Amino acid sequence: MYGSNGVKTSLQFPVPEQMKAWVLGGPDELFLRDKPTPVPGRAEVLVRIDAVAICATDLQVIHGGAPASIGGGLPFNKNFTPGHEYMGTIAALGPDVDEFEIGERISVEIHAGCGQCKRCRQGMYTSCINYGRPDKGHRANGFTTDGGFAEYAVNHINTLARVPDTMGDAEATLVVTAGTSMYGLTELGGLVAGESVVVIGPGPIGLLAVAVAKALGASPVILTGTRDKRLAIGKGLGADRVINIAEENAVDVVKELTGGIGADYVVECAGTEATIDQAIHMTNRGGKICLAAFPHDKVMTDIAHLVKNNIYVYGIRGEGRSATRRAMALMAEKRFDATNIHTHTFALADLPTALRYARERVEDAIKVVVTTREANMVASVAAE
Amino acid sequence: MYGSNGVKTSLQFPVPEQMKAWVLGGPDELFLRDKPTPVPGRAEVLVRIDAVAICATDLQVIHGGAPASIGGGLPFNKNFTPGHEYMGTIAALGPDVDEFEIGERISVEIHAGCGQCKRCRQGMYTSCINYGRPDKGHRANGFTTDGGFAEYAVNHINTLARVPDTMGDAEATLVVTAGTSMYGLTELGGLVAGESVVVIGPGPIGLLAVAVAKALGASPVILTGTRDKRLAIGKGLGADRVINIAEENAVDVVKELTGGIGADYVVECAGTEATIDQAIHMTNRGGKICLAAFPHDKVMTDIAHLVKNNIYVYGIRGEGRSATRRAMALMAEKRFDATNIHTHTFALADLPTALRYARERVEDAIKVVVTTREANMVASVAAE
Amino acid sequence: MYGSNGVKTSLQFPVPEQMKAWVLGGPDELFLRDKPTPVPGRAEVLVRIDAVAICATDLQVIHGGAPASIGGGLPFNKNFTPGHEYMGTIAALGPDVDEFEIGERISVEIHAGCGQCKRCRQGMYTSCINYGRPDKGHRANGFTTDGGFAEYAVNHINTLARVPDTMGDAEATLVVTAGTSMYGLTELGGLVAGESVVVIGPGPIGLLAVAVAKALGASPVILTGTRDKRLAIGKGLGADRVINIAEENAVDVVKELTGGIGADYVVECAGTEATIDQAIHMTNRGGKICLAAFPHDKVMTDIAHLVKNNIYVYGIRGEGRSATRRAMALMAEKRFDATNIHTHTFALADLPTALRYARERVEDAIKVVVTTREANMVASVAAE
Amino acid sequence: MYGSNGVKTSLQFPVPEQMKAWVLGGPDELFLRDKPTPVPGRAEVLVRIDAVAICATDLQVIHGGAPASIGGGLPFNKNFTPGHEYMGTIAALGPDVDEFEIGERISVEIHAGCGQCKRCRQGMYTSCINYGRPDKGHRANGFTTDGGFAEYAVNHINTLARVPDTMGDAEATLVVTAGTSMYGLTELGGLVAGESVVVIGPGPIGLLAVAVAKALGASPVILTGTRDKRLAIGKGLGADRVINIAEENAVDVVKELTGGIGADYVVECAGTEATIDQAIHMTNRGGKICLAAFPHDKVMTDIAHLVKNNIYVYGIRGEGRSATRRAMALMAEKRFDATNIHTHTFALADLPTALRYARERVEDAIKVVVTTREANMVASVAAE
Repeated sequence: MYGSNGVKTSLQFPVPEQMKAWVLGGPDELFLRDKPTPVPGRAEVLVRIDAVAICATDLQVIHGGAPASIGGGLPFNKNFTPGHEYMGTIAALGPDVDEFEIGERISVEIHAGCGQCKRCRQGMYTSCINYGRPDKGHRANGFTTDGGFAEYAVNHINTLARVPDTMGDAEATLVVTAGTSMYGLTELGGLVAGESVVVIGPGPIGLLAVAVAKALGASPVILTGTRDKRLAIGKGLGADRVINIAEENAVDVVKELTGGIGADYVVECAGTEATIDQAIHMTNRGGKICLAAFPHDKVMTDIAHLVKNNIYVYGIRGEGRSATRRAMALMAEKRFDATNIHTHTFALADLPTALRYARERVEDAIKVVVTTREANMVASVAAE
Repeated sequence: MYGSNGVKTSLQFPVPEQMKAWVLGGPDELFLRDKPTPVPGRAEVLVRIDAVAICATDLQVIHGGAPASIGGGLPFNKNFTPGHEYMGTIAALGPDVDEFEIGERISVEIHAGCGQCKRCRQGMYTSCINYGRPDKGHRANGFTTDGGFAEYAVNHINTLARVPDTMGDAEATLVVTAGTSMYGLTELGGLVAGESVVVIGPGPIGLLAVAVAKALGASPVILTGTRDKRLAIGKGLGADRVINIAEENAVDVVKELTGGIGADYVVECAGTEATIDQAIHMTNRGGKICLAAFPHDKVMTDIAHLVKNNIYVYGIRGEGRSATRRAMALMAEKRFDATNIHTHTFALADLPTALRYARERVEDAIKVVVTTREANMVASVAAE
Repeated sequence: MYGSNGVKTSLQFPVPEQMKAWVLGGPDELFLRDKPTPVPGRAEVLVRIDAVAICATDLQVIHGGAPASIGGGLPFNKNFTPGHEYMGTIAALGPDVDEFEIGERISVEIHAGCGQCKRCRQGMYTSCINYGRPDKGHRANGFTTDGGFAEYAVNHINTLARVPDTMGDAEATLVVTAGTSMYGLTELGGLVAGESVVVIGPGPIGLLAVAVAKALGASPVILTGTRDKRLAIGKGLGADRVINIAEENAVDVVKELTGGIGADYVVECAGTEATIDQAIHMTNRGGKICLAAFPHDKVMTDIAHLVKNNIYVYGIRGEGRSATRRAMALMAEKRFDATNIHTHTFALADLPTALRYARERVEDAIKVVVTTREANMVASVAAE
Repeated sequence: MYGSNGVKTSLQFPVPEQMKAWVLGGPDELFLRDKPTPVPGRAEVLVRIDAVAICATDLQVIHGGAPASIGGGLPFNKNFTPGHEYMGTIAALGPDVDEFEIGERISVEIHAGCGQCKRCRQGMYTSCINYGRPDKGHRANGFTTDGGFAEYAVNHINTLARVPDTMGDAEATLVVTAGTSMYGLTELGGLVAGESVVVIGPGPIGLLAVAVAKALGASPVILTGTRDKRLAIGKGLGADRVINIAEENAVDVVKELTGGIGADYVVECAGTEATIDQAIHMTNRGGKICLAAFPHDKVMTDIAHLVKNNIYVYGIRGEGRSATRRAMALMAEKRFDATNIHTHTFALADLPTALRYARERVEDAIKVVVTTREANMVASVAAE
């Protein structure tokens, strides 16, 4: 029988001993395998995955492994299961867990800090000094511990946010992305009502950064990018002005829209030398830049401009400071419709196809969601 | 008679209608001229300059003008008087000023914000949106308004800190530099007791950053540089460890001294591509970097490392957040001996020589102080 | 001719030398008088009052004078004009003012700090140490300097927020109240999305605190009070749950709604011993209480509970930290309908009647607005 | 053999199966018993107690049990061991612990949060929502879990701070108290250099608050109390001015010393109605009060003054935000001599006598330390 040692299960959610899971072979090789269903420990639950969205980082992990910086070794041929933007239903409780009940729908945030390093003690669990050390209690599902391209996953209770009945499975997977966007604004101070915010790069994080900033009352919210179709989606999510940087000079336009001084906050989600340079020069004196993306190589950077203008720069990797719960709260209240960025749905068995849609942006794919539940598939088809 | 319209003077401190002041001709040309003694307005005082220290930025202003970024036009042949690290005695009060009395000794901070822009309303007066606009009330003496290489200057009362009797004139000029160092640590959070702090670059700001960090209980405080003589002074000011980067790998040593994770806070006061890169790679996950210097051109920067490690970067230009008063408080209590960095003293009339000592580091000059008072000269000679 | 010395006027907005203004005689005595139209100084504008709302504090000032604590002497028989919740049109500009133009519609915040005390330098202008000293530049219109029950008033540019065309005059007067509510949430940290917020007391500040908290995503937002009619308005403004404390035990209900632990944030707007006690006992460990009202006498307070539970308490008097601009931003985006609390409109000449409606809550009056413009009156009549 | 399941021990520090420990019988009854030596779990260590100081709260716990508010039931006749201000030597490591080594000397902080509630995730582990629930991982040794009046205790690694060789055992026990004082100043903002700080009540927390405030550069630091002997000790620890409130009006003197406006920060460590009232009225507009003590009953409180003056009030119970490590850092650097408050030393077997000295202030006892090590006793005798 599944579990033991204080793990609690329910007849309504029988947990099999073995589950289906995609595992990494070599780079870009994924196999659907049977694996033992993982068992939750203290302060952990077992999640039955109901839906999981594909993130660009998944593609990187599958292709090249988790970045060395995050502390883990490469995951190839190690039976590793990627996937980190998922939601599901609690199917079993670890010993002494009473914060959640079996059957509750939840979405997740990626990081569970070790809880014992200096940063975790400060509440900065995404900066956990023990990143990549499961022996110390750190988890980053889909990066350093098994993730969501599977029927089940184990999550620390710190990473869970309840999904309201009014929110569909696919929408709930987007809370992970929205949580990152919210974290960016959180680190920028959070009180953005009436402040000017520029979002650079209309990828999923950028588009939801537009939505979150607008939901919090930022004004104007400006989105820059190169693809008009994406910019139009940004407009639908609340951007007051979009700038196609192939056609307009973003720095000039932002200055013009902000009385000549530049924006209060810039969320950089494109990660190129050119856009980082734009971010620096479109921020006003004493303003703040959140770097939510990055170029893989070093880039020429105008440090002097940062210094001479007292500009603050924060790098963020994923969510933090419980921002995912704030994002969930806004989405639960329908302050914005994150499903605008959800474009395709596939069955878990079709993960390779789903990954191809995401990688090659087939049919202008933005967020591609994979689901284990037939109901989700039907809903998706109906929606198309 | 000097003043009028509510300006208050005293028989004990008679103010002449004309004063001696150094003014800029063309680049690198300075002339000692007679100028009308300036008259303080509302919330301003007239300061009789008693001593003024030379800063590397003075050399830049005299050579190339104030940086365009700070809003002012070039100061050449405009009768402009540079010099911003001064102290003196209050000689006249503007209308309605009762916060200070004539005869009080004070040191200054450079920036008086306009008090009416968004940043000033937030208390960020060194990020004043009206930087360089005296018509809006902004002053940055020695940069955009007349400075201290003269017998008198006008200062906004916001820029004054009282000098205790136990502090000499030359020491009091160093409060301006210490205020910048303190501001760097303030923006890094300020609670550095028991935290690891690396200071890069043993110039005046770096050396006093060592002293301030140590005074606040930081541990270890590590100083990096290339000149052993300077590093030795840093040791005297409290550095627990110095690293000559010509001989040791700064990043490796810092990691070794911090249990492998890197430093909590780095104050970068060298401003080169190499040292900025070191700063980035010696900061721990979730740590903070204060950029207090900058290279004039863009430099290759490892943005990815900042993002992947949730590192915070703040650019500071000069003091702010009333940090100068905090620095004065520590110096008044003799928590560190800033005079360790004071190497030479000249009369105001010998400013060109003083500037040469500072520029060419004659006799290993660090802080060169110019004084209008014979007493200071004598003291200086005695000290040598 | 009106003005001089650099004051700018416009033919389109001719400013008379004399204006109508209500002035205080003795306690509770108001007379409509002719007064010289005030002249704006540096960084000030002349506002033609278009509408002004009545606040409970106005009634106190008219009855008993401005509280001694705010630094001013009593205003009786001193030609003093009360009124602080107003909006209007800029009719003249002080010397060098170019931040605004004549003809722009603006609403105000009450406090302009002196800009030179310790608190103002920190951005805490509502805690100005020179409160009540116009000689130092401090203004609190309607409290220590002339206010808005008149045809014109002078305002520091720091106190102005532009009114969008889509917002009516009466609604714009409510921004002052909403700014106070927003300030309360600002001091509580501002990041309230998904956090539990209790508002105690459905007066104007309490009702708009509900609206602002909900607009920022707080959940649940709970409102307590004694009058069902007011609670119903709170429900309309976004309260998830209302508690009539005459019928239910507020502390018990809040605990029940928050999983037994109590609320994260409590905004106390009733100011009685009983409600302050409820606030203390319904706040969770580490939670925060904003006191936005106060009893006139000392009250029995459970200090031990605050200490044993690490509770933070902030007293606020009016708006601050530019919160009025954030409130305006949310209202401009129609995130909530503040006009729900606007019940009556009178002409300026009928101020005594308007004050009676407000004081005696005639016809369940909440916010009573006085206007100088016929257009407003017509609109008001039409709306009834 | 002691331990198992991954617990690591060392031959140099043999751990007996049974240890001596004081346990509570009924109220005010303590018995020295044999108890099984506790076994550290994950992220925990076994501490051999070398010295433990007596705190007023110990006397309360022994007399009346842990306050109901902190979540635990009464500890009487439950084999409970009190004592929370201890230091010692690591004698065994829980499974996977490699942050510390056997043989290291450490002092402790009291609270280990559960690491999984909302407050712990924010870094507010002393406000842990699961306070008093060891099943959730929360520990407060000496309050809700066994403490230090014993030969051994188990501690979470989060609660440990290394003791330098230059610091004696007795001094190291005082770090717990200094950590509370430091936490008070941390919550007040921490940047107190040059700010005015009043400490009310020269008990151990108050006296060390004086020392910490002075070490951080606060000026002036003012101490109020009723016993001249204690006030003199405060003077020795850095108070610039002491006020015997039986002889002087504390509020008047503080105002006089602060230019008429009152103090920036007040740390209230007396906990009476009178002193809380003094705290409120001696704090300046926008200033902050830390309540570090409390009266057992409700007290008449001038809430109106708090609100009208925008005063912030924080209740703290014990240390937090890693303040103990900051206190240790300052003490390790010998910034103040905490041993000034250490007056008596007894052997562990003499605990009842030690408690009597502390309770009745025999021979003006302030901090009474109990030790298990003969060396400490000898040192103590030598020191007398």
